[in-house]
Amino acid sequence: MSGLDQALEGVLARLDAEREAALSRLFQLLRFESISTDPDYATDCRQTAEWLATELSGIGFDASVRVTSGHPMVVGHAEGPDGAPHLLFYGHYDVQPVDPLEYWNTPPFEPAVEVREDGSQLIRARGASDDKGQLMTFVEACRAWREETGALPCSVTVLFEGEEESGSPSLVPFLEAHREELTCDLAMVCDTGMWDADTPAISVTLRGLMGDEVIVKAASRDLHSGGYGGPATNPIRVLSKILAGLHDDQGRVTLPGFYDGVVEPSPEIKAQWDALPFDAEQFLGSVQLSHPAGEADRSVLEQLWSRPTMEFNGVTGGYTGQGFKTVLPAQASAKISCRLVGDQDPEAIRTAWRAYVRENLPTDCEVEFFPHGGAPGTVLPYESPSYEAARGALTAEWGADAAFVGCGGSIPIVGYFQEILGMDSLMVGFALEDDAIHSPNEKYELKSFQTGARSWARILAALAARS
Amino acid sequence: MSGLDQALEGVLARLDAEREAALSRLFQLLRFESISTDPDYATDCRQTAEWLATELSGIGFDASVRVTSGHPMVVGHAEGPDGAPHLLFYGHYDVQPVDPLEYWNTPPFEPAVEVREDGSQLIRARGASDDKGQLMTFVEACRAWREETGALPCSVTVLFEGEEESGSPSLVPFLEAHREELTCDLAMVCDTGMWDADTPAISVTLRGLMGDEVIVKAASRDLHSGGYGGPATNPIRVLSKILAGLHDDQGRVTLPGFYDGVVEPSPEIKAQWDALPFDAEQFLGSVQLSHPAGEADRSVLEQLWSRPTMEFNGVTGGYTGQGFKTVLPAQASAKISCRLVGDQDPEAIRTAWRAYVRENLPTDCEVEFFPHGGAPGTVLPYESPSYEAARGALTAEWGADAAFVGCGGSIPIVGYFQEILGMDSLMVGFALEDDAIHSPNEKYELKSFQTGARSWARILAALAARS
Repeated sequence: MSGLDQALEGVLARLDAEREAALSRLFQLLRFESISTDPDYATDCRQTAEWLATELSGIGFDASVRVTSGHPMVVGHAEGPDGAPHLLFYGHYDVQPVDPLEYWNTPPFEPAVEVREDGSQLIRARGASDDKGQLMTFVEACRAWREETGALPCSVTVLFEGEEESGSPSLVPFLEAHREELTCDLAMVCDTGMWDADTPAISVTLRGLMGDEVIVKAASRDLHSGGYGGPATNPIRVLSKILAGLHDDQGRVTLPGFYDGVVEPSPEIKAQWDALPFDAEQFLGSVQLSHPAGEADRSVLEQLWSRPTMEFNGVTGGYTGQGFKTVLPAQASAKISCRLVGDQDPEAIRTAWRAYVRENLPTDCEVEFFPHGGAPGTVLPYESPSYEAARGALTAEWGADAAFVGCGGSIPIVGYFQEILGMDSLMVGFALEDDAIHSPNEKYELKSFQTGARSWARILAALAARS
Repeated sequence: MSGLDQALEGVLARLDAEREAALSRLFQLLRFESISTDPDYATDCRQTAEWLATELSGIGFDASVRVTSGHPMVVGHAEGPDGAPHLLFYGHYDVQPVDPLEYWNTPPFEPAVEVREDGSQLIRARGASDDKGQLMTFVEACRAWREETGALPCSVTVLFEGEEESGSPSLVPFLEAHREELTCDLAMVCDTGMWDADTPAISVTLRGLMGDEVIVKAASRDLHSGGYGGPATNPIRVLSKILAGLHDDQGRVTLPGFYDGVVEPSPEIKAQWDALPFDAEQFLGSVQLSHPAGEADRSVLEQLWSRPTMEFNGVTGGYTGQGFKTVLPAQASAKISCRLVGDQDPEAIRTAWRAYVRENLPTDCEVEFFPHGGAPGTVLPYESPSYEAARGALTAEWGADAAFVGCGGSIPIVGYFQEILGMDSLMVGFALEDDAIHSPNEKYELKSFQTGARSWARILAALAARS
């Protein structure tokens, strides 16, 4: 047994012994109401960042809260042995809004452990899975390495962001301004999921994102539908026609040029995906759906991992309170987003979408747009040795072959790390499909938290062993 | 000069002398936040009813607040001379919600008089025009008759409702339960407008209303668009397609059977309408519109007065707060309403609309409906002597020929008075197109209030003279 292997045994034993304390620290983090998209929670976000910096300092990181024009970043550095790889770990401490609050069974910011009939346990809270629970798996792995051996086996820089759920407006300027400080050999991003509850996964493709908001304006004020109904243009009617025209009856997006740059996955990846035991019926059935709504000629896994989408995330106009109001509203608005793959260009698609809206706008309407982030899709170099080393560590910890999988979501940071810092990302995470991230009653498996921390302890050793 | 004419001179002089006191009473009424559609304002509604009953008692009415299953009614009786006609005056003391509050230039429940550069004055407040200012024109006319002559020239029953803006759920049961108490020779309804600022009008056709709310439900919870975008059915997309399919590109409603029962106006009425100086460009231009959005082969006046509509009054789904949330919502909903004419059957149209929604619903969606009122359109017996008497009184007061006009709005009470009490309604009101009823910055012309009160004083005399 090498010295590194021996040290790892001690680190894993320490993680097992310190489980209660680790959970209590996670609960502290979960109690912060760090909703980044809503300015009312700015103070909560700052306090969360301060708490994280203090935690990192306590385990030997040179850590600080960095002011941005939005919510702050947390950066920490811990040096490893000479010649060991230098790794950047990224996570985000901000969370999604909690509405509709009435769908929550417990208060979203009062974390609790729930025990199922089969004895398995879960951590219930907003952010438990996305991303506070995930980022704490890495922090706890570092703590155990530090406390057991006095140092980390690799040099580690930590970057925690507070705007991931609100389009990351400060991220690119921050990366550009701190290129030297943040450029490492490899990034590690913990914002993805397991293949299933027993099978760990490394995400090797990601969909990109183009988000946009449109406001359609008609009359100069809200009108009474008795006095104006008929001749007055109704912006809800206009917006409905615009949204309704974006998909054909085969589920394809009709926007001209939308599919430009879409790349089919490589035969190797496609073969791996085909071999994965995926039950589309069960996947949809878990949220009470049964009929795939994407492109009719594509499998559900393709619809999720390798095909782009155009989705409507929010729509509002007119009177939406209790009761009824016979109003013709002055305006109606929608928030839309596209998931992008391959070489689709987010800005070209934003331009095409806006042009389509303008072309379909009646004379009596005006339109305003607000951009909400854009990032292209990503394919990572999964054939390189670091990825194989991490896959080996995960397989050893979980006792099941780790899978290279696609990810339907967008993790723009991975694209930025490539573009700005010239760094690939190893995406490992322990979330499950049913974690209800972005939804009421979000949870994280207690096993994800505990075995996740052990997984990172092993990955650090495996990457160190390659040096 | 007859005794009645002489009395009327005194009554009119008294109204002129008591203008300040009348305005101060109206301001008291306008300060009540009697928003009937929102249960939070139930106490305000009750207090408004109590204030009105007290006012009526103060001018000789036997008045009381009547409990209903919703907001209360106010009923008052004042006996006139033997043989004089018995009139029922109807108004409503509830008001529309005030959102969007940020569009108001002054607080909606703090009434104020504003003076324009040309010296004309207006009363600014929610309900100033719809319907508190209007109903007080009649109360002030009664007060002046009573104070000047000791009695009213006709027997008068007053009925003030508190649920007109929220579908009048208690009205029909109340009318049915008080048939004997409320049946008179003629009803007078003050909830309509002038033809223009100088020309009074009597509304002789009204559009009916069918209001409905639909909730389209898809997945059992809100979903992350990264994890489910593509295969998961998006209820905003479904709802948009449903709403977009309800009008063809000529502005016609596509619902099967929708136009069944639509009746063209009589040649007499059509000739009168054609003779009215109506500037469609200016009408639409006053709210920054320019292109009629209704049926392409109909004039704007027809679109407003004699053609039915299908309008969308509110739509909501997904994340509608500040910022962005990449959610696939569990549901989306819309409030719709149809303006109806002639013999269109509101319940048949509700059935057709619901059937259309169900036919266009994908397998993965469920739907729920909530009815929001229904009433057919109305044509009144404008050739009868009472209407001519009222027209004469209005013409005398305003110095301009009063017009028999159509009304694009729905005043369901007129239909109920016909059906339940067998009584026609004389619809006289002093609102103007630009009063912004149901909108921010609602106003009522001070002249409408003052000359309106004088108009009712004259109408009471004219109807009494016919006896």
